[in-house]
Amino acid sequence: MGLFSRDIKTMDDLFVHTLRDIYYAEQQILKSLPDMIEKATNRELTQGLKKHLDETKNHVARLDQVFKLHGAQPKGVDCPAIDGIIEEVEDVAEEVEDKEVLNAAIIAAAQSVEHYEITRYGTLIAWAHELGRDDCAVLLQKNLDEAKAADKKLTTIAESRVSRKAAS
Amino acid sequence: MGLFSRDIKTMDDLFVHTLRDIYYAEQQILKSLPDMIEKATNRELTQGLKKHLDETKNHVARLDQVFKLHGAQPKGVDCPAIDGIIEEVEDVAEEVEDKEVLNAAIIAAAQSVEHYEITRYGTLIAWAHELGRDDCAVLLQKNLDEAKAADKKLTTIAESRVSRKAAS
Repeated sequence: MGLFSRDIKTMDDLFVHTLRDIYYAEQQILKSLPDMIEKATNRELTQGLKKHLDETKNHVARLDQVFKLHGAQPKGVDCPAIDGIIEEVEDVAEEVEDKEVLNAAIIAAAQSVEHYEITRYGTLIAWAHELGRDDCAVLLQKNLDEAKAADKKLTTIAESRVSRKAAS
Repeated sequence: MGLFSRDIKTMDDLFVHTLRDIYYAEQQILKSLPDMIEKATNRELTQGLKKHLDETKNHVARLDQVFKLHGAQPKGVDCPAIDGIIEEVEDVAEEVEDKEVLNAAIIAAAQSVEHYEITRYGTLIAWAHELGRDDCAVLLQKNLDEAKAADKKLTTIAESRVSRKAAS
């Protein structure tokens, strides 16, 4: 949770710090998605990732609203977790040559990104309720629902990739 | 996915590489759990983490079996994702002083670890079936089920922490 965690004294501090963690993470995801879209050759996967790019822009906008509602400055903090997850994504996109294997690896990498969002938003929603910020929880819930839906969609794409391969 | 990803040419290579990724990850989790257990002051959380320590040892043992069944060498590869996730866990355990806030932060950190396991085992099970390795899938499914159960248990602990606080 980065360099500033020594300033975390209350649940409110922890909530704002974790908001900044996912704010940074969403921005890094925004930067990495275009490369994944370019590398993917499965049409369904490309479309799914493009949709997720639009959703990620909305996630950042909703986080801006949450910061505003809560009276906190919208800024990111270092998040080694998402940096590591994206490093793995980029490694795969760079190094695997076979298109079919690359599509499978991109799906897996995208799902690890979604699961990072799922765990962080799940936590943030619980803390928002604990702090009496149901207004923030409503916005965070929308981001969580989209991350869960994106993860499910990626599982479907993975399954249809295998079925197509088996039929060919 | 580390330095060796350029050697990934087939789905089999990708499967073995990702097995090695989670093998390394589980070993890092094994190393980090005792510190989290020491720092946690909520009894339910301490017990939950101790149970997860035992389960993690079983996860490594099952991965050893999967490597053996598949005829691949059991070894780890660099996994920047889990390194980043654990870096956040350790930062939190070091820096947050208030016990109640620290327990909340440890629960969140432990859930991010579980979600990394959930996404990787989900992927590995799908690929095991694709490669006709239903025998490996059975073992990987046990690890996935335990990771999902641990995540749910952590949510319950988080909720009971909040209820107790509200009642006090």
